[in-house]
Amino acid sequence: MTELTIPSRKLTHDGVRRLIDAAVDKANELGVPVGIAIAGDGARIVGYLLMDGARPLAQESASAKAMTAASHRMPTHKIPYDVGMGLSVTTQGKVIPLRGGLPIVIDGHCVGGIGCGSGTGEEDEVIARAALAAIGAENPEA
Amino acid sequence: MTELTIPSRKLTHDGVRRLIDAAVDKANELGVPVGIAIAGDGARIVGYLLMDGARPLAQESASAKAMTAASHRMPTHKIPYDVGMGLSVTTQGKVIPLRGGLPIVIDGHCVGGIGCGSGTGEEDEVIARAALAAIGAENPEA
Amino acid sequence: MTELTIPSRKLTHDGVRRLIDAAVDKANELGVPVGIAIAGDGARIVGYLLMDGARPLAQESASAKAMTAASHRMPTHKIPYDVGMGLSVTTQGKVIPLRGGLPIVIDGHCVGGIGCGSGTGEEDEVIARAALAAIGAENPEA
Amino acid sequence: MTELTIPSRKLTHDGVRRLIDAAVDKANELGVPVGIAIAGDGARIVGYLLMDGARPLAQESASAKAMTAASHRMPTHKIPYDVGMGLSVTTQGKVIPLRGGLPIVIDGHCVGGIGCGSGTGEEDEVIARAALAAIGAENPEA
Repeated sequence: MTELTIPSRKLTHDGVRRLIDAAVDKANELGVPVGIAIAGDGARIVGYLLMDGARPLAQESASAKAMTAASHRMPTHKIPYDVGMGLSVTTQGKVIPLRGGLPIVIDGHCVGGIGCGSGTGEEDEVIARAALAAIGAENPEA
Repeated sequence: MTELTIPSRKLTHDGVRRLIDAAVDKANELGVPVGIAIAGDGARIVGYLLMDGARPLAQESASAKAMTAASHRMPTHKIPYDVGMGLSVTTQGKVIPLRGGLPIVIDGHCVGGIGCGSGTGEEDEVIARAALAAIGAENPEA
Repeated sequence: MTELTIPSRKLTHDGVRRLIDAAVDKANELGVPVGIAIAGDGARIVGYLLMDGARPLAQESASAKAMTAASHRMPTHKIPYDVGMGLSVTTQGKVIPLRGGLPIVIDGHCVGGIGCGSGTGEEDEVIARAALAAIGAENPEA
Repeated sequence: MTELTIPSRKLTHDGVRRLIDAAVDKANELGVPVGIAIAGDGARIVGYLLMDGARPLAQESASAKAMTAASHRMPTHKIPYDVGMGLSVTTQGKVIPLRGGLPIVIDGHCVGGIGCGSGTGEEDEVIARAALAAIGAENPEA
């Protein structure tokens, strides 16, 4: 007989705050203020913080990176640009093929994505990666 | 120490197909063709079928009812109209306070929502309720 | 004398379910979970299923591929990328020039389109093509 | 001579985190999980957290309440419903005339808005008010 439901894992709001706090610490260390977004179930945004001095429109880019990494379960910069831009228009910007988004994988479960925006793509990625390391999440492929 | 993740349950695609098939059976019995939408994690659409003869734009109303029931975890018609219309504009139509959407609760877990559209609100609700009963999901409050 | 109406053929909801079921079977055989969308008359979505493990945002890409194939009556990857992206912006993402969408042609009538998303473009196309073959629809040009 | 610029005050990201943390504490005390959004300069979202168990679509309602309170510099429920719904359609949902959003006024400067969603309007307001009190912001008119 077919199963109606299957077990899953969800990121807690405490986990979200710890990711955001760790990203802020790394961003402060680098002197690069960013917007930090976290996506959870169904690639919906569950957390966000815009740091002092970061670009106000980083909300949308960081959120898109978080949703993209959560849905694709891979770093955003691994998506080929042409494919990613096609998906971006179709999803009205929810998918973005730009560097700075990483999947959140804890104990083997992908429970969402983190996206940073306002730095260079490389800075955004370094900050996102540091946040994952701080909570003991898996380090995604480079 | 705070938990980073918590256990959850997800609706399977076999569960989705069984809900849709059961809704079709009830709709055929009533002679009321409808659009049937299922929302899952994060109130995202995971299944849809438009029956022969149903209104083509039912996709959007049925999907909104499914997302609303999944997010609010209550029947869509329990949302006061004025509040619901405010939420509807703000969510660009993802929330709708019209009858025909019910939460999907299995073994005590709300795993999504089902929404029907194209009949009267009462017919839509009867069909959604029959689909839930057919898979052994909880019968939501009237 | 001019005719006011002309005969047409429409895909039934049973046809939609058979296409989706056949796509699921092929996707399971390949071990590549996808979102599967079917567009019918007027390039409107008439069916959708997100498989367990597929990307949640595949709803939008699979639907766009299905609508594109139904409207253009050709495989989505035959649309030149630059033209397709122009159409994509204009149609707010309803047209997408990415691989994975095929027209549904039965007895010489194009009655819609099928679109798959979440795999690579090539995987998405193989699954869509298998679904068409399973119901005896025409095999679109490669 | 006319001045080209005037002094202003901005909410810091530390202020944002303290507001969110205080809202979480009050929501936990009440047993009412909510989404909490903070808007800053230009009525742009600068912080967000969705609590475990809150409605996923609360992101959009809480954010709209925060933007509305920040822009109007008054509690969201003081906006007449009919006027508010007109503004809501025009702003594509950024303004919402539903209870649960309050301006953030510190040392006489309105520096943004806080919006809560997922509870009843009254619960959302109580939680937002508690967050303002916790950081020593002004208590907006009832």
